[in-house]
Amino acid sequence: MKAIVALGMTMFLTAETIGQERQDISPEAAATARTLMETALESDLAYDIVESLTTEIGPRLAGSEAEERARAWGAALGQELGFDRVEVEGFTMPFWDRDSLSITMTAPYEMELHGTALGGSGSGSVQSEIVYFRTVDDLVAAEDGSLEGRIAFIDGDIMVRSQVGAGYGPANQRRRIGWQHAERAGASALVVRSVGSDSHRFPHTGMMSDLDGSWADIPVIAVSNPDADHLRRLHNNGEAISLTVNSVAGWHGEVTSGNVVLDIVGRENPEEIVLIGGHLDSWDLGTGAVDDGAGVAITVAAAKLIADLPQRPRRTIRVVMFGAEEVGLLGARAYAEQHADEVANHVLATESDFGARTIWRLSSNVSEAGTPVIDEVGRVIAPLGIIRGGSNEPGGGPDIIPLAMLGVPTVRLEQNGEDYFDLHHTPDDTLDKIDPDELAQNVAAYAALVYLAAETDADFRETPDGTASQ
Amino acid sequence: MKAIVALGMTMFLTAETIGQERQDISPEAAATARTLMETALESDLAYDIVESLTTEIGPRLAGSEAEERARAWGAALGQELGFDRVEVEGFTMPFWDRDSLSITMTAPYEMELHGTALGGSGSGSVQSEIVYFRTVDDLVAAEDGSLEGRIAFIDGDIMVRSQVGAGYGPANQRRRIGWQHAERAGASALVVRSVGSDSHRFPHTGMMSDLDGSWADIPVIAVSNPDADHLRRLHNNGEAISLTVNSVAGWHGEVTSGNVVLDIVGRENPEEIVLIGGHLDSWDLGTGAVDDGAGVAITVAAAKLIADLPQRPRRTIRVVMFGAEEVGLLGARAYAEQHADEVANHVLATESDFGARTIWRLSSNVSEAGTPVIDEVGRVIAPLGIIRGGSNEPGGGPDIIPLAMLGVPTVRLEQNGEDYFDLHHTPDDTLDKIDPDELAQNVAAYAALVYLAAETDADFRETPDGTASQ
Repeated sequence: MKAIVALGMTMFLTAETIGQERQDISPEAAATARTLMETALESDLAYDIVESLTTEIGPRLAGSEAEERARAWGAALGQELGFDRVEVEGFTMPFWDRDSLSITMTAPYEMELHGTALGGSGSGSVQSEIVYFRTVDDLVAAEDGSLEGRIAFIDGDIMVRSQVGAGYGPANQRRRIGWQHAERAGASALVVRSVGSDSHRFPHTGMMSDLDGSWADIPVIAVSNPDADHLRRLHNNGEAISLTVNSVAGWHGEVTSGNVVLDIVGRENPEEIVLIGGHLDSWDLGTGAVDDGAGVAITVAAAKLIADLPQRPRRTIRVVMFGAEEVGLLGARAYAEQHADEVANHVLATESDFGARTIWRLSSNVSEAGTPVIDEVGRVIAPLGIIRGGSNEPGGGPDIIPLAMLGVPTVRLEQNGEDYFDLHHTPDDTLDKIDPDELAQNVAAYAALVYLAAETDADFRETPDGTASQ
Repeated sequence: MKAIVALGMTMFLTAETIGQERQDISPEAAATARTLMETALESDLAYDIVESLTTEIGPRLAGSEAEERARAWGAALGQELGFDRVEVEGFTMPFWDRDSLSITMTAPYEMELHGTALGGSGSGSVQSEIVYFRTVDDLVAAEDGSLEGRIAFIDGDIMVRSQVGAGYGPANQRRRIGWQHAERAGASALVVRSVGSDSHRFPHTGMMSDLDGSWADIPVIAVSNPDADHLRRLHNNGEAISLTVNSVAGWHGEVTSGNVVLDIVGRENPEEIVLIGGHLDSWDLGTGAVDDGAGVAITVAAAKLIADLPQRPRRTIRVVMFGAEEVGLLGARAYAEQHADEVANHVLATESDFGARTIWRLSSNVSEAGTPVIDEVGRVIAPLGIIRGGSNEPGGGPDIIPLAMLGVPTVRLEQNGEDYFDLHHTPDDTLDKIDPDELAQNVAAYAALVYLAAETDADFRETPDGTASQ
């Protein structure tokens, strides 16, 4: 940690000396942002928060009793840290969960596989030879009824590793829509290679896509990459492969979930909101450390450092711990609906939901007038090793999508996602995967960005005619 | 691969030029050894063998039907590769296996843990608060009867990483003798932190130590390092922790196991044996790729390359695929007994059983007269990045211990074991963990060593009066 801080100090002085700031961010505000960064790099607060969440609450499946405990934890944390307003905002949602699963290869010999039901999977006990599909497209091409009573297996490939997670979308098709074609073709179960970039014997869970509001009747199971490799080799050897799948999983009616909303109320324009956050729910297999305990911890810690300043910034800073992200951004949608009358007052929004590695790039989608201000933020946080760039497309993180679709400007502090999909949705997403120093770099960047966005006069929003409002 | 080969060629020439060979190894033999090394570095044979074993046979628990299939596989492989003699040598052994296990934390909240029964564990269903022991020594100090009906948990620490596996012995005490003290103190179950250097959510299995021939009556379960970390944090928070353990595991009488013995018969001294090998059994959780499919593959491939030479070396080269190593070196003990009348003819013995990473050091425990010959071997294989060194202590690998105790000289090609205990005895010990180029480096070193040891006149054995025999 010390090396990072020392380097940062030197570079802060350099930036000051060469006078890169514009008037949109006052020299005083920039100096405060730099102090926040220094404080953040020496603080353990974010690590303490994610340790508390993962240890005291553990796994937090959307809609579960554990997620409810997490909301109570989040509200208590907000009170303890001195946020000005703390609210738990409930919403209802359909509840899916898994009970037991066993998946065993029974021919050419017996071997237990490492699998997990995908979100939305049905129950069932099936014994059958598999029908092998090299890719999801091959299953899409299968004729109706051609798999009657059989188990379909979609192989695919290990997800490509990428700093920006570019491999996820393409690989994810087999998880998303595979079941729709397996059922159409009459299969009794579907097994897919996990969507993950690792070569460990962990399955990756995750939600499937519904089909006009309906979900799979059959068991849909993801197996680990090494297990899928094993099945591929046996298949390529010409072996007939049989599996026995016993899965109990399904839907259990409507339950209550909720978002936890923590505000630092602005001193001059309290109605204007800079929104940050992460999601409180996690998949049930791990303890949701990198997905997304880290995001909750980073954003709460950043806001807390700002709250500790002698005065509040001009605008309100709102931290939202979103509920039920993993099962379809349900908390984010509920937030956008419940706050419909103040959506226009959201001047900027961003979420941390891509792990706990260092931030390497600041990207944005804001008004023409607001862009130079984000550029200035970029110069302030450059000593943290962060470049300014990225495409000017709506973004800000999964839970920001409903707001972005309503026109809320977004910004993103992009984390290095190189190994994010090694852990994503697996039992291995646990606290030990988080490096406290990397987490602190995130807090430093968020604290500076959020403070400056809340302290500036600049508007990041577009007026109805497409120019920046003032 | 190409870069390694090119480098090797250059260095071979250099070694030739500066004339480092002594007369114990003829220039012709050294040249042949170098050719074997070049061929080995370009060969996929070892990888193909370990791929075949792990894919076509899969997990191979000692004494199981799968281990029997592995023996048939090994014998067929020996025939196919043209070994001069192929034997399956049976022995009987007590059979332990596991059936089902669930281990769930039920307080302070419910969470499934990742555990596995240790070898020799009993069955049982237990629900209890845990009694936390920071180390195995703390449990050793527990009073008789002090844990009546409770679940003991030994925490310990993540095993220290070491190129030579130095962390294993100390960490392994909790796995070996923990149960003896848990039972003495009246515990109904014992849970221990896995003996492993990784931070993944895989438990590491492995055999416990018997107590005067008896084994645990209670369930003895290893949990993954992240799970143990979790329990430690909760304990340190002052939480009372309860677990529910349901384990079915136990002993099932005597069964047949066996060693597969493959000989390349020597052209001049066929009764003199250079013994190499690996073990054929594996723990049941993974597919036994690095432990010890790799060792089987490396040694079989090295012998096959020598068998492909225009003439047999002077002495017999014997590859032994040992059975039932994991449960107490049972195949190795059976081999020493069944070959008691020819033990004195074993001129050198070594096993590959420490993974599939590159070899970095050649160590030996041979006669004074034989040591300079091993030194010469060291010079021949130096271009593979292997240094000569190590203590002059009996070694050669686990399955060589019974022979070494009878005075058979040993040598060891030491692999880099830095990450061996990340995978050791876990479900994650699968083919994808093996780098074909690193495996080929192993084959090259074995081929050169074994060829030179079988071709030389030198004797590595001591005479009864302690001087080298001739």
